[in-house]
Amino acid sequence: MSKVALAFDLGGTELRAALVDREGRLLAFASVPTLARDGVMAVVGQIEILAETVRREVPDAVVAGIGIGAPGPLDPKAGIVLGAPTLSGWHDVPLAGILSDRLGLPVRLENDANAAALGEWHFGAGKGANSLVFVTISTGIGGGVIVDGRIMHGRRGLAAEIGHMTITDKGERCFCGATGCFEAVASGTALGRRATAITVAGDGSRLRVLSGDAEVTGRDVVDAVRVGDPMAISLLEDEARWLGIGFTNLLHLYSPDVLVMGGGISNGFDLLRETVEATIRNRAMPAYRDVPVVPAQLGRHAGLIGAASLILRDEDETALQVSTGENPDNHTETEPVGTREAIHG
Amino acid sequence: MSKVALAFDLGGTELRAALVDREGRLLAFASVPTLARDGVMAVVGQIEILAETVRREVPDAVVAGIGIGAPGPLDPKAGIVLGAPTLSGWHDVPLAGILSDRLGLPVRLENDANAAALGEWHFGAGKGANSLVFVTISTGIGGGVIVDGRIMHGRRGLAAEIGHMTITDKGERCFCGATGCFEAVASGTALGRRATAITVAGDGSRLRVLSGDAEVTGRDVVDAVRVGDPMAISLLEDEARWLGIGFTNLLHLYSPDVLVMGGGISNGFDLLRETVEATIRNRAMPAYRDVPVVPAQLGRHAGLIGAASLILRDEDETALQVSTGENPDNHTETEPVGTREAIHG
Repeated sequence: MSKVALAFDLGGTELRAALVDREGRLLAFASVPTLARDGVMAVVGQIEILAETVRREVPDAVVAGIGIGAPGPLDPKAGIVLGAPTLSGWHDVPLAGILSDRLGLPVRLENDANAAALGEWHFGAGKGANSLVFVTISTGIGGGVIVDGRIMHGRRGLAAEIGHMTITDKGERCFCGATGCFEAVASGTALGRRATAITVAGDGSRLRVLSGDAEVTGRDVVDAVRVGDPMAISLLEDEARWLGIGFTNLLHLYSPDVLVMGGGISNGFDLLRETVEATIRNRAMPAYRDVPVVPAQLGRHAGLIGAASLILRDEDETALQVSTGENPDNHTETEPVGTREAIHG
Repeated sequence: MSKVALAFDLGGTELRAALVDREGRLLAFASVPTLARDGVMAVVGQIEILAETVRREVPDAVVAGIGIGAPGPLDPKAGIVLGAPTLSGWHDVPLAGILSDRLGLPVRLENDANAAALGEWHFGAGKGANSLVFVTISTGIGGGVIVDGRIMHGRRGLAAEIGHMTITDKGERCFCGATGCFEAVASGTALGRRATAITVAGDGSRLRVLSGDAEVTGRDVVDAVRVGDPMAISLLEDEARWLGIGFTNLLHLYSPDVLVMGGGISNGFDLLRETVEATIRNRAMPAYRDVPVVPAQLGRHAGLIGAASLILRDEDETALQVSTGENPDNHTETEPVGTREAIHG
């Protein structure tokens, strides 16, 4: 059986694991609700159990290493989670080292948005591109950038904080404290907030019917457009215009070959496309106008598949995390694991 | 004598040449007004003459190759100037190949803003940084970005079009056609325009006295602040706030170790600094607030020194331009020139 990667996507609510083959296919999958409040070792325990679960499903798989996507900021080179806002007590956690010791395999770590970008780049909507911007539009706005064939890290792995680029003087204050952030006007949350503001619970509007008279979400707006609701159509027009303004900036700043849009709101990509493209044509300098904007292809598994690509592909040398230690659970003499040869061979 | 580079900075008004040593020092320098309207071969002729001029000054110099900064967009890998707005008739010019044939040396080409970024990175204000953003604030706003130890190119070498990032709904229409571009509100031109708008020729204001009752320039504003003019102080405060907003975006998007500010307006760096830094502290997410913003060190020679670094340093493999042709001016049999060994040896 050819080489596979053991991949994890460590989220604040869900921890997912998979065995992924060289074509980016999931051979086995398992997930559990993350023990996000119970500290590092509780989650490490979950990872060990999930590793066993998925490996048991494909017993003859030769696992070349572990790729893991985790909330940033993190240091991909050292394999350290610096601080994960959604995981209690996670500060300066040498996750790659811990997992490498526990599981006896080389481990590479990447932040979750970058992992999703890598997934779409190697196996999804950005296949074959030399430079790519992946933007995820959901509760917030995040992303990852491939430039000249490499994932962009920057200082402390903090590059591509796309959501907190100022694009306007308008809009409500962003949770980050600034005003005019891309995220504050163009996220799914912002779209839902605008829809909530122009409707009232019980008003019988399509938006409120779809939301069950609760706060309207960005998804509700997309769903209402699909049934022709004029109020929703106007809201989604505004949304597409904001996306077009932000995307134009990303084209100018990173000059990708392709811009890949993922996240919950990308379910409405077909509805947003025309206005997004018109806004880009209207605002971008001529040399950037013909860059394709495409929907993500890997859906919720982009991060998992991208994490696997850290092991299955070797383009991104900078994120290399190598273990030369032994498995502490096995005190007999073992071969050193996680040499470069083991990863790249 | 140790290895030196022959460097050119090809501008729309001035063509500069220098011999630059491994420490980034200019051993010889010469310049001429660019024959910008006379087509490619007129400029190539100027380059050949300047090459002779500077080489004659240091006859024992061993020239390892030619680095040239030219107006973008250009393809650094192929060594082709795609289209230079300030040079008539320059479309798809294989400049590196032409010069390599003429001068019998390996040639590497980079766009002028990237060349300046490389100069400041290798020999100036950004020495030792792994990631760096260089922003030049003068007539327009441009820049170059080093990420993870490499200059960022992107599709068609068009990355880092910093001036045309939208940061506001305000401001006059930018020459690019959009509104709210960083350049449209924060360039030296924008600063001068604001100063011109609130004064009148002959009004006796410090700004108009300094401008000789012509249109006020950004430089005039800086000069007026130096003599304590309150109107100029207020204008420069606004300028610094716009710079702070734009710089905050650049920190979020590229996560550099240092942001280097060059261009004419950086003459007022000491006056701008406090408000620029306060704006960043106020708007940037915590992890980005302590990134130093520093003035450029190489002044008008940054591009020339950076062009030399293309030959003197080999970090940026992607811009490699190699000639294996012969010198057409010399039809005797010659050794092939411009092998990789010749560059890197």
